[in-house]
Amino acid sequence: MRKLEVCFTPALLPLYDITDSIVVIIDILRASSSICYGIDNGAEGIIPVATVEECMEYGGGDFLLAAEREGCVVDGFDFGNSPFSYTAEKVKGRKIVLTTTNGTQALHESLRADKIIIGSFLNKTALCDYLHRQQQSVLLLCAGWKGMVNLEDMLFAGAVVNRLRGDIQNVDDSGIAAEELYLLAKDDLRGFLRKSSHSIRLEKLNIEEDICFCLQTDICHSVPILENGSLRKMADIPRLL
Amino acid sequence: MRKLEVCFTPALLPLYDITDSIVVIIDILRASSSICYGIDNGAEGIIPVATVEECMEYGGGDFLLAAEREGCVVDGFDFGNSPFSYTAEKVKGRKIVLTTTNGTQALHESLRADKIIIGSFLNKTALCDYLHRQQQSVLLLCAGWKGMVNLEDMLFAGAVVNRLRGDIQNVDDSGIAAEELYLLAKDDLRGFLRKSSHSIRLEKLNIEEDICFCLQTDICHSVPILENGSLRKMADIPRLL
Repeated sequence: MRKLEVCFTPALLPLYDITDSIVVIIDILRASSSICYGIDNGAEGIIPVATVEECMEYGGGDFLLAAEREGCVVDGFDFGNSPFSYTAEKVKGRKIVLTTTNGTQALHESLRADKIIIGSFLNKTALCDYLHRQQQSVLLLCAGWKGMVNLEDMLFAGAVVNRLRGDIQNVDDSGIAAEELYLLAKDDLRGFLRKSSHSIRLEKLNIEEDICFCLQTDICHSVPILENGSLRKMADIPRLL
Repeated sequence: MRKLEVCFTPALLPLYDITDSIVVIIDILRASSSICYGIDNGAEGIIPVATVEECMEYGGGDFLLAAEREGCVVDGFDFGNSPFSYTAEKVKGRKIVLTTTNGTQALHESLRADKIIIGSFLNKTALCDYLHRQQQSVLLLCAGWKGMVNLEDMLFAGAVVNRLRGDIQNVDDSGIAAEELYLLAKDDLRGFLRKSSHSIRLEKLNIEEDICFCLQTDICHSVPILENGSLRKMADIPRLL
């Protein structure tokens, strides 16, 4: 039976059988949002790598190098994971190599899945329309923060569960919890996230504009998918009414 | 600074520093409820063991042997983890050796904590009064189901967070999420849990009475604490107004 599960952190991923599933990587603040925005803005590909060292190995070539650790751009790199670095002006036609604290780690730990795609509020409808048309089980993988659960990733997972309810009845307890939280928070996502410890930490990084940007819905209409080690725009997704 | 954290499953426990913390084991359906009820009913001690084999080694002595796997009493044992097996008539003055699918596992994985105590809706106020008077950090450890998150343990963790908010401001995102879910569910816990996949599985076990029993609040006034490998009634806890 088709399942819809939410994995609250990559540390729990080994418990899930994902070999026949679509895994959706969710790292709302900010990797998955920036990847969706960059791909939608015409980046030719985003190559996710696990370590800063691997990212550096692409230096000197044609690549933009993006590295974030502890919420900041790593010294010597073109940029980190702020969505404002992924505008069409900066990324159109370019290949980007990206490593982040949580999002790209989550992605590397999902490589045994049948498909890996990227979700964020920015491409919510495109993502849900795609998942709606598939007959596969879905695992929504929250990147969290260093193995810990975070609220913004749970909320987006809950938004997806809420949209897919009509298609998949078999939802696990994490999915039920995430959906209830999303329904509580949906009219004021920013306000709800102010409760979050993670959000307080992010406020210290002075990225309020990034946070508000990442909570916008449906400014992107594509779904990044991992193919041959690179995230690319999935072939056209017809918009459902 | 004093912290209040919620760990959604024992699989995440290695991420937490608990050496100076009080760990509260939560396995609402049904191990932690039955332990609270048994200790309150005068059981001299409950010895939690990880495996059925270890439990069997206590056979032939003065012990009651309790073993649950997959929600059922293991063949050949006195009882499993139904609270109705832990009445005063059955357990007063007795020593019990107990192994369960999730609860006793969680306990064994917490042995590096400063103190290990047991929480359930049945002893909620006694537990919160005790935690209120301590100056230590608290980790609420949800036993879950085979490493996965479950809703009833989250809800009780949320109830404790809600009660301790005045004492501890430093609450992690798991705790915030759990509290919000508890506030949503508190007026009809049973109804809320009907959404849960775990609850559906438990209904198949025909333990509706057990579930309703375990969702009662404050029928016990003691807190079980682990001392020298055995759970015992903690010395008198003055009731706060």
